[in-house]
Amino acid sequence: MARGNGSVSELQQERRKFKPVLPAILQAGAGSVKAKLGKATKSVADQEKVKEIFDHTYGLPEAAFAKGANPAAKKKAVKVAVVLSGGQAPGGHNVIAGLFDGLKKANPKNTLIGYLGGPSGILENKFKTITKDMLDNYRNTGGFDFIQSGRTKIETPEQFETAKKNLVENKINALVFVGGDDSNTNAALIAEYAKKENIALCVVGVPKTIDGDLKNEHIETSFGFDTATKIYAELVGNICRDVNSAQKYWHFVRLMGRSASHITLEVGFKTQPNIVLIGEEVLEKKMTLAQIVDGIADVVIKRAQQGKNFGVALVPEGLIEFVPEMKELISALNDVLAENASEIAAMNSTEEKKTFVFQNLPQHLSALMKSLPAGIASQLMLDRDPHGNVQVSLIETEKLLTEMVHKKLSELKKEGKYSGKFSAIMHFFGYEGRCGIPSNFDANYTYALGYNAAVLALNNLTGYLSSVKNLIKPAKQWACGGIPLTMMMNIERRHGKEKPVIKKALVDLNGRPFKEFVKNRDKWAMSESYIFPGPIQYFGPASVTDMTTQTLQYEQKAGKR
Amino acid sequence: MARGNGSVSELQQERRKFKPVLPAILQAGAGSVKAKLGKATKSVADQEKVKEIFDHTYGLPEAAFAKGANPAAKKKAVKVAVVLSGGQAPGGHNVIAGLFDGLKKANPKNTLIGYLGGPSGILENKFKTITKDMLDNYRNTGGFDFIQSGRTKIETPEQFETAKKNLVENKINALVFVGGDDSNTNAALIAEYAKKENIALCVVGVPKTIDGDLKNEHIETSFGFDTATKIYAELVGNICRDVNSAQKYWHFVRLMGRSASHITLEVGFKTQPNIVLIGEEVLEKKMTLAQIVDGIADVVIKRAQQGKNFGVALVPEGLIEFVPEMKELISALNDVLAENASEIAAMNSTEEKKTFVFQNLPQHLSALMKSLPAGIASQLMLDRDPHGNVQVSLIETEKLLTEMVHKKLSELKKEGKYSGKFSAIMHFFGYEGRCGIPSNFDANYTYALGYNAAVLALNNLTGYLSSVKNLIKPAKQWACGGIPLTMMMNIERRHGKEKPVIKKALVDLNGRPFKEFVKNRDKWAMSESYIFPGPIQYFGPASVTDMTTQTLQYEQKAGKR
Repeated sequence: MARGNGSVSELQQERRKFKPVLPAILQAGAGSVKAKLGKATKSVADQEKVKEIFDHTYGLPEAAFAKGANPAAKKKAVKVAVVLSGGQAPGGHNVIAGLFDGLKKANPKNTLIGYLGGPSGILENKFKTITKDMLDNYRNTGGFDFIQSGRTKIETPEQFETAKKNLVENKINALVFVGGDDSNTNAALIAEYAKKENIALCVVGVPKTIDGDLKNEHIETSFGFDTATKIYAELVGNICRDVNSAQKYWHFVRLMGRSASHITLEVGFKTQPNIVLIGEEVLEKKMTLAQIVDGIADVVIKRAQQGKNFGVALVPEGLIEFVPEMKELISALNDVLAENASEIAAMNSTEEKKTFVFQNLPQHLSALMKSLPAGIASQLMLDRDPHGNVQVSLIETEKLLTEMVHKKLSELKKEGKYSGKFSAIMHFFGYEGRCGIPSNFDANYTYALGYNAAVLALNNLTGYLSSVKNLIKPAKQWACGGIPLTMMMNIERRHGKEKPVIKKALVDLNGRPFKEFVKNRDKWAMSESYIFPGPIQYFGPASVTDMTTQTLQYEQKAGKR
Repeated sequence: MARGNGSVSELQQERRKFKPVLPAILQAGAGSVKAKLGKATKSVADQEKVKEIFDHTYGLPEAAFAKGANPAAKKKAVKVAVVLSGGQAPGGHNVIAGLFDGLKKANPKNTLIGYLGGPSGILENKFKTITKDMLDNYRNTGGFDFIQSGRTKIETPEQFETAKKNLVENKINALVFVGGDDSNTNAALIAEYAKKENIALCVVGVPKTIDGDLKNEHIETSFGFDTATKIYAELVGNICRDVNSAQKYWHFVRLMGRSASHITLEVGFKTQPNIVLIGEEVLEKKMTLAQIVDGIADVVIKRAQQGKNFGVALVPEGLIEFVPEMKELISALNDVLAENASEIAAMNSTEEKKTFVFQNLPQHLSALMKSLPAGIASQLMLDRDPHGNVQVSLIETEKLLTEMVHKKLSELKKEGKYSGKFSAIMHFFGYEGRCGIPSNFDANYTYALGYNAAVLALNNLTGYLSSVKNLIKPAKQWACGGIPLTMMMNIERRHGKEKPVIKKALVDLNGRPFKEFVKNRDKWAMSESYIFPGPIQYFGPASVTDMTTQTLQYEQKAGKR
């Protein structure tokens, strides 16, 4: 055990005893589950190109599990490997637990190994053989510390070769890849490679990401989203209560989620703060930074007119990248800095560098750059990643916005159009939620996803993503099966090359969740409609312990599926 | 109700049903409780000066409640006012609920009003009469939003005059002051003033502060400390798990608590991170900033030698003010900036201002200033409060330390003494914990404190602080009574004047909690002894819901009391 002195919290001791509820269809084990295959499928877009890349695995049929004797799934003992890929999400350990239990139930001689530290564990052949005793300490816990995770991708021909060698030498029959969109794209490529190379390796994916942007008709949500948004909502709710008690501060909270604003929207539903910014709307409306700032200032002013110099605003981490002019600016900066790297490096003062860069930007971008707070402008210019690019994830958007709102309000004050007080406090929540103890929902969901992955593997359904659905119903009624990974693909340009990738699910501006938000946001802006969800509860009334996300509720009750 | 559209979270609905456990001694109401008075008391220090200021209320005897008929406490209907003063702490609403229920139980004709927005509510005569229906929505909830709080002090003769006028006109028999050390000092002054002016007003204090620095032999802990530290520990535990899963970052977490490091120590016990800095130790050992940085770098290097380029460090918010040289620097900066205000204001560039200030500082302080990261040095010079003083609370100590550690490690790397990676992520937790839903402990404790305050008021025990003790025992066994406010006073210089104030309880370096920490910290530093407490639970096994703080456990089991 990694935990140094073996101390375990009281809650963790109790959580070890929790028995996840398995969907009825899986309860008798893989030997009593038959896969019903549907029609051949197509990728969501770019069918020709995706088909060309996935020559051996494109167009697989959907698989839905139904009751039925399936002795083949119990017969031969198999060896399965699991790997955790990418950022942590609550419930990863339960995926392993479900997978382990599903395999053992089918045949006690089945074995499970865990590659250590993410996909690099496959390449470096680092793994541990998972035993019940080992695993029992990690059931229903947060974190990925049981076998750790990593961000290595298996991409080059050499890497594929090494992976093949290690998997074959270890006599692995199936590989379960737990990850987000990128990791599952990688899983699909490995499945394709195995078929092409004629290796008897079944590859199964499991949809993981707190960001909630890996979802579609068949994957209703990725695991971890429920727990992470509940943790952030606990904190935002506490801040709303603090704001309404002290009545003297505005709090700006940036929430994790770079590519999509699902987390911010869900936390918005759970807490009803005064301002909720959604990146996808900013993009759709082609909003400028100034328009966003004006929008915030407008709410601040109107509340101040009612004597309310306080409020709470939620900002998605990726907001900046949704603002078209900022995207243009970042891209132009990358170019100017790359093209004049040595010249700029030779300059001594920041002032000199700034002047040079400003002169070399198109005029409208130079003006935009000048409108930014000095600290942010310097950060954009000076903080570069190893590839020389602007480090967008380091930009403290909540600080950028409050500084600009502050400036705007000062101007309006001089003109006599605003007489309130604006004092802002800033927060960023992300890491706090990735390793929380999974909610009952996520504990059940991940256990089912893992167990279901075992059934897929035992049926040799390669190139599939573990699919557990009907999630707003009780866990017993969840439907299980597999969705072909290629079905979710399209082609995108990455680093100048066309690549097949699983399409990210952004907040749908025509979907019910966003529409419900739009219906309510004006009321939230002016009132104190705050809701205080409090911390995740694992015991007590089902109303408190077992509710799912508001996003899922709205999506599924809209009758869209 | 303040909540705009009346939506209430599922947990809040359930928490409304919670019935706090009242200490057995209070269960039959004030009519069955007799106050046993002890010997006359003395202030903790400066007895002569304190006595002079509190001519009418100095030296009151301790009061301990025992069973016994007390018809007088039920006879006459009284009108009581409650006021919340200072920062929020979980359980404030339950103080009001306990007070209300204690008053009504004694005599249904007793009434309770709440002054709004803190002590300024007394001066502005803003209040609401509290009814059961109103209150029921706030039972067992976090926040002070029921009647809000404020930081106004009643200090000038005019303010005392106004307070007297409003309290007399409202026919208030007793005033219950819920606050920290400063607020309860103010309560003591009002009690003294009322006696001097011959007004029949009983003033009772209630010990509130998440910081945990209002405690002594009779006040075992202030309310809110339990809940707030549990919330911070949930987050720090999640971060520890994240760190141990990703194994590539150091996280530096600054925790609220400027004057004392109790919060940091308690969160340290609950999560066992690699580094825990305690301000009181820094002061005692007269540590320099460089020594603190060296100490952190030492742990980073030793862990890196074991291949562990990750860890978690806790930093108390007030650390900087405990570093003697920093205190000296801040004081010298205040002087230089005040003495040369107009000259400095006339300078155009930051560079020019810096050069001037550096020249005017004593040499060792100028050197210290130059050793600080540029951003922090600018902040120290430029961000001033309305009195022209350095805004110490704005200093992001976690950023200061990581930048300096980073610099130190870079130097050592050049010398070939370090070859690890140091990538740091920073957090500040404070506001997230002040308004959380009170833990069962705090819900019971605050209800008892409020109920006990009612009994003190009904016995006309003025100038007392509500005292509920034996807190590591079940709530039924808690002992109740009152402690004279003057007993906790000493004289301190504030803004150049000698003032009577309640003495702050700092972390006692000879106390059992600190000693336990010292015993364990080397092990925590090098191992991953992390504990993951998870979120506060309100339902389920008592081991999970009802435990108190580790600090209290250590203090009381040390046999010191």
